[in-house]
Amino acid sequence: MHASGSLETLMAASLSSSPNSSSSSCSSPCSLRIGIVGFGAFGQFIAKTLVKQGHSLSAYSRSDYSLICSQMGITYFREIDQFCMVEHDVILISTSILSFGDMLNLIPFHCIPKPMLMVDVLSVKEFPRDHFLQVLSQEFDILCTHPMFGPESGRNGWSGLPFMFDKVRISKDDHRSKICDDFLHIFKLEGCRMVEMSCEEHDQLAAQTQFITHTMGRILSELDIKPTPVDTKGFQSLLALRDNTMKDSFDLYSGLFNHNRFAIQEWLRLEHAIEAVKTKLLKDKDHALDAVTTKFLRDKKHESN
Amino acid sequence: MHASGSLETLMAASLSSSPNSSSSSCSSPCSLRIGIVGFGAFGQFIAKTLVKQGHSLSAYSRSDYSLICSQMGITYFREIDQFCMVEHDVILISTSILSFGDMLNLIPFHCIPKPMLMVDVLSVKEFPRDHFLQVLSQEFDILCTHPMFGPESGRNGWSGLPFMFDKVRISKDDHRSKICDDFLHIFKLEGCRMVEMSCEEHDQLAAQTQFITHTMGRILSELDIKPTPVDTKGFQSLLALRDNTMKDSFDLYSGLFNHNRFAIQEWLRLEHAIEAVKTKLLKDKDHALDAVTTKFLRDKKHESN
Repeated sequence: MHASGSLETLMAASLSSSPNSSSSSCSSPCSLRIGIVGFGAFGQFIAKTLVKQGHSLSAYSRSDYSLICSQMGITYFREIDQFCMVEHDVILISTSILSFGDMLNLIPFHCIPKPMLMVDVLSVKEFPRDHFLQVLSQEFDILCTHPMFGPESGRNGWSGLPFMFDKVRISKDDHRSKICDDFLHIFKLEGCRMVEMSCEEHDQLAAQTQFITHTMGRILSELDIKPTPVDTKGFQSLLALRDNTMKDSFDLYSGLFNHNRFAIQEWLRLEHAIEAVKTKLLKDKDHALDAVTTKFLRDKKHESN
Repeated sequence: MHASGSLETLMAASLSSSPNSSSSSCSSPCSLRIGIVGFGAFGQFIAKTLVKQGHSLSAYSRSDYSLICSQMGITYFREIDQFCMVEHDVILISTSILSFGDMLNLIPFHCIPKPMLMVDVLSVKEFPRDHFLQVLSQEFDILCTHPMFGPESGRNGWSGLPFMFDKVRISKDDHRSKICDDFLHIFKLEGCRMVEMSCEEHDQLAAQTQFITHTMGRILSELDIKPTPVDTKGFQSLLALRDNTMKDSFDLYSGLFNHNRFAIQEWLRLEHAIEAVKTKLLKDKDHALDAVTTKFLRDKKHESN
């Protein structure tokens, strides 16, 4: 729904007074009022399941998603101020890594009813943790999460897929800690494998796994690999990896590198591994390779002229 | 069966006079007498299906495979001279790329009853083609093939898997061309996707696909990637690729590189692709990387001291 001005205020009030959307009165996991900031592909992907589970959703995004929100039964706000006045239980930031800082700068935190649980879903974790800790007062609880899947890998449900989280700062207050547990319950309910670890440990492991995976996909894309009549199963898995990687933006890949302090080390380890394979492969062939390299570079230069 | 001396001669005679093993008298595809030279993992893998289809098999290998041959109902010869005296319809060379030349030098071609269809199954194709053409007189027909699968990828049958072949030199004589067609029928019968192309075209495509796949697997192995609690599906596919690649010997990988003249170009294209990704990724980060590279190399040096 694309509301504006006083209509938005009215809807905000309506959302907050909805009888089944207050979590303060139930002890078992219950319906949450969740505000999503950033409603791109990933935000929509997550929202589908939140709606299915019966949570009340509102969304703010810089691009106009009023139509898709209305189709999904989600209240859409075009003004961040109006969005922030809504009595949410949770605000979920679902922007790209690249625009996370800008978005936090845009949010009028003083307007947000408190206490409030702030959650992010970025593929790097120290970066949003540090941002949150810098701008959020103690009245905000902080939960950093990384659902290790997306629209492609989570297409057939989330069962067995890893959901990493770090309770960076959750008040011991019963109500506030219950909101956090209820939010985590969403992913437990879908069958996710719940992995609690520190943001630092996540970034170390993600650099060794997710960053390397994206790097391989990007290299294969640059190499312009193509199906042939004689593809082995192994090669077909490379084609699939390339295709899946290229569905994600270069901004995501750049974010995995630039906002994870462990990634640069993994890049260097990769270069080291390539050199090691080359050394084993060539042995006495160095002169042959030198000659072909010279020819190859000359051809490349010729191509680009 | 581990026969020797005159016993081998006896068995050779027995094999050649087996009533259902002569293909000269049937017009539809019929049972072939196939001699396999080299009975390692791949030879055994192929032999299982040949036996299942009812062909008569004998095998020669430098290592002693008498026990496994006896279990499979295959006549095993420890002497190449005795093996060559058997009246086969087809001799299938199933050695590694590395020992293919040595094995051809070992075979007393003058002892082999002619005409004879010679077949190879190497992962490179110009190399065995050239060897065959160099040592084989016109009385030998030459069929170069590459079943693009192995014990792992073909574990659940060969249906839909590509079988490449090049009829390098097949006599127009009815009987001789029928032997070739009957041999190819073996793979058609298993549901293989039959791909006829020249050895040159195969090597071009295999360098772009199979060699790159093995290279990626070897790089991931050098990188020593490991499962973590937060693996994405994409990373799991890299772990599987690494595991499958490392089931093959380094000799195979080395053969894919050293005996396919198109492979070196693909290695250089790979290095070029890596540089292209790095350039996009770094942009203004060069100085940062330089600093980390220096530290990384210092640490590596420290490790190895």
